[in-house]
Amino acid sequence: MGVGVNTNLKSTYEELLDRAREVSDLNSAAAVLSWDQSTYMPPGGAPARARQIALLQQLAHQRATDPALGHLLDRLEQEAADWDPDSDQAAMIRVARHDYERAVRIPSDFVAEFAAHTSHSYQVWTQARPANDFTAVRPLLERTLELSRRYADFFPGYDHPADPLIAETDLGMTVATIRPLFAELRAFLTPLVQAIVARPAADDSCLHQHYPEADQWAFGEKIIRDYGYDFNRGRQDKTHHPFMTRFSAGDCRITTRVYEDYVASALFSTLHEAGHALYELGIAPEYDATPLGHGTSAGVHESQSRLWENVVGRSRGFWEHYYPQLQAVFPTQLGNVPLDTFVRAINKVKPSLIRVEADEVTYNLHVIIRFELECALLEGSATIEQLPQLWRRMYADSLGVEPPDDRNGVLQDVHWFAGPIGGSFQGYTLGNILAGQFYAAALTAHPTIPAEISRGRFDTLHTWLRENIYRHGRKYTTAQLVERITGGPIRLAPYQEYLTRKYSALYDL
Amino acid sequence: MGVGVNTNLKSTYEELLDRAREVSDLNSAAAVLSWDQSTYMPPGGAPARARQIALLQQLAHQRATDPALGHLLDRLEQEAADWDPDSDQAAMIRVARHDYERAVRIPSDFVAEFAAHTSHSYQVWTQARPANDFTAVRPLLERTLELSRRYADFFPGYDHPADPLIAETDLGMTVATIRPLFAELRAFLTPLVQAIVARPAADDSCLHQHYPEADQWAFGEKIIRDYGYDFNRGRQDKTHHPFMTRFSAGDCRITTRVYEDYVASALFSTLHEAGHALYELGIAPEYDATPLGHGTSAGVHESQSRLWENVVGRSRGFWEHYYPQLQAVFPTQLGNVPLDTFVRAINKVKPSLIRVEADEVTYNLHVIIRFELECALLEGSATIEQLPQLWRRMYADSLGVEPPDDRNGVLQDVHWFAGPIGGSFQGYTLGNILAGQFYAAALTAHPTIPAEISRGRFDTLHTWLRENIYRHGRKYTTAQLVERITGGPIRLAPYQEYLTRKYSALYDL
Repeated sequence: MGVGVNTNLKSTYEELLDRAREVSDLNSAAAVLSWDQSTYMPPGGAPARARQIALLQQLAHQRATDPALGHLLDRLEQEAADWDPDSDQAAMIRVARHDYERAVRIPSDFVAEFAAHTSHSYQVWTQARPANDFTAVRPLLERTLELSRRYADFFPGYDHPADPLIAETDLGMTVATIRPLFAELRAFLTPLVQAIVARPAADDSCLHQHYPEADQWAFGEKIIRDYGYDFNRGRQDKTHHPFMTRFSAGDCRITTRVYEDYVASALFSTLHEAGHALYELGIAPEYDATPLGHGTSAGVHESQSRLWENVVGRSRGFWEHYYPQLQAVFPTQLGNVPLDTFVRAINKVKPSLIRVEADEVTYNLHVIIRFELECALLEGSATIEQLPQLWRRMYADSLGVEPPDDRNGVLQDVHWFAGPIGGSFQGYTLGNILAGQFYAAALTAHPTIPAEISRGRFDTLHTWLRENIYRHGRKYTTAQLVERITGGPIRLAPYQEYLTRKYSALYDL
Repeated sequence: MGVGVNTNLKSTYEELLDRAREVSDLNSAAAVLSWDQSTYMPPGGAPARARQIALLQQLAHQRATDPALGHLLDRLEQEAADWDPDSDQAAMIRVARHDYERAVRIPSDFVAEFAAHTSHSYQVWTQARPANDFTAVRPLLERTLELSRRYADFFPGYDHPADPLIAETDLGMTVATIRPLFAELRAFLTPLVQAIVARPAADDSCLHQHYPEADQWAFGEKIIRDYGYDFNRGRQDKTHHPFMTRFSAGDCRITTRVYEDYVASALFSTLHEAGHALYELGIAPEYDATPLGHGTSAGVHESQSRLWENVVGRSRGFWEHYYPQLQAVFPTQLGNVPLDTFVRAINKVKPSLIRVEADEVTYNLHVIIRFELECALLEGSATIEQLPQLWRRMYADSLGVEPPDDRNGVLQDVHWFAGPIGGSFQGYTLGNILAGQFYAAALTAHPTIPAEISRGRFDTLHTWLRENIYRHGRKYTTAQLVERITGGPIRLAPYQEYLTRKYSALYDL
């Protein structure tokens, strides 16, 4: 009888995997079409391409919300009642159920309406930003806010209207858990930034010289190859905005852009996107094209991109190994620039207006402003009309700089013009915090890691991250991962200690 | 009342277009995934990619055979009974009906079985060809032949079992129409080849020097830009085997490969694939993603690739304009090589073993051998076991050369290992014949075309081809197109006259 039962169980479970694989393959196909759109597609391909991507996404959504999938999950949950809850199979069912319940709550009409609205908003924004024209996007943002609130209302019972939107990207996190963390972080950062600004500014003129594109490209790829990025399972191409995209366990690609008059942009964007890719490539191969086969949250993803970009890639030890190589590639630009000058240049802290150009320390203040604005807009304690003014005031308060126009203020980020208001930004700073916490845990387990980094060796760190974080995919939520690794909740202290140690040394604080 | 009827008609007709667009978009998405697979995909992406492409093709097939589409066509045919049969709308319904009837006759099981079999055959062939191992593929070819016969039997009532397979690629053509044409062509070619071979051989050593890749690439792209290939609606990338692929009316791409020790390969493959692309890009934009939105047949497609590659691109007049430019790019290689030597080199006729490397004259003999073998195998007058021996004998008879092994004989072409036996080859020679006939018609309409080509101008020819052939897409079959253009059937004479004139001059016959 046992055999009969097992066969039966297996077949129901395998039906789940078959269905999930189809959804995943349709989404991956859409991702290939999007990648091509950003990398190689000639302009004439745009209209049909948008339609083709929309069709694939619609077919994936239909399958993800198929009532037959719900019935299958009902049956499976009964059959799996006594399975080990920590088994992959139980996790698969749990995550599949979560995705299904989330998907069916959002009516197809709403999905289509929201997609059409953001597609239009994005088009208008691409014109409005260079034209510094907030009035052009204001009614669109008002509609986005209304749609974002409607989205939240598909998940009644929330404490804060941002919570369902945060759950989209950082499941398990809420305004109630994030706000105190961010308040504490701001209280720590403000005096740190003030102390740094009071010191002589770092000289980063060495970065602003002519650096030929091909040499920049090759150097970045050399480093990520050392990191362990496998070019048999990925590649790097050029796009306007860098990104990482996963097509399968054997194909996770990154992109970058190169400025020949500034060497730090392509290099650190390559390290950043490679961090995302190392995460995806490290997921257990048997999770591929299943509900578990992706990184678990925006926060954990960003923890890896920022760990490999900043914690590793901007550390002094790292450049003790790589700087002589970089000097050899760019002898006229860097031959006479001492290591310390270079390390200070790539870690220069300076309050500024643009998030994506911000340094490691002030970056979080940009994020916190946006998170607070999202909460205020959703709560109704702020209006879209007030947004440009609020933005200016918060920048003046937090960073001591005030944007002279909306182009360099509220219009700078694509997020609110390509997606909802809510849940869009917290992942970036959660990522910094988690990077600090994970790196500290890795160092406790393997105190030799910094010395290895100083020799251009990353195996111990990479293996530790893969075993403790990457391979689990979506099996554990952010909080569960942190609990498994540190035995406790998300904590700020390791990140604070990291920043204090690093910037005290750099700025003689 | 008229309004009511029209609205109603329109809505049924538009439902047809909606359904056709979905099938087309799924096939285009599969084509993007295939293009990426050949151009940029890292090796690790292969297993998931095959599955993703198969899923998209399966979804397209399901939609193309949906019984609801059949009912819709029934309704539309009644409603459209009095529409102008030459209208686009009537053609759309006619071609949609043809595609539907064709698709529903082939059981889904058979489609899957055939796809799995050819995928396996192809894998085995990639090993067997370099290993010169016909026995490894023999049982697979026997199965391919059996499946090809089963395919034919889904279309009972044929005169010859190759006819349903030929209809796949060259609708309206049959063994009964092709055989006499090919017999006549062979009777013409055999003495021509003998006469050429009796003359001193052309010296093509100038082509076999070192030609840097980037310069070859740029020169080929310059020429096709002059042809009218629009890089806003296409691009060229590198692949192992050159091809053209259509994703939409605004995105038809080509690929090529470059040998630095032989300048004629990349260049003429670029001109060849550009010919295919000019055809697709010239189709009426309103046909995009409809049943009419592709080239009408393998023969007409090949007529365009070979017209732009050979009739135009290997003509003396063409090189009167371009040769000084080519010499300027490659002064050490060609600076001292006279124009006549170069033109004779790129038109060198020499019986050889490999079809894809054959010259314009002997090429057709390679094709006719394969066509006759396909017919014989399907008829049962030859067996797979006999194939290597038959191949050798036919090469000795037709071309006076005999392959020393199967690698350079029966194993050389991918076709029988990636598709059916039957219908695979006739299009190449039909294309040559049609190129001759179409070019003669264009010259009758515009006698200035050769003079324009000698000045690097192609507008008159391109416009004539677009108006008379390209824009119609699949609205007319091959025979209907020829009838519209020449007022008669497919004729060999213009192609024979073209070959006689060109090669008499080149070889002083």
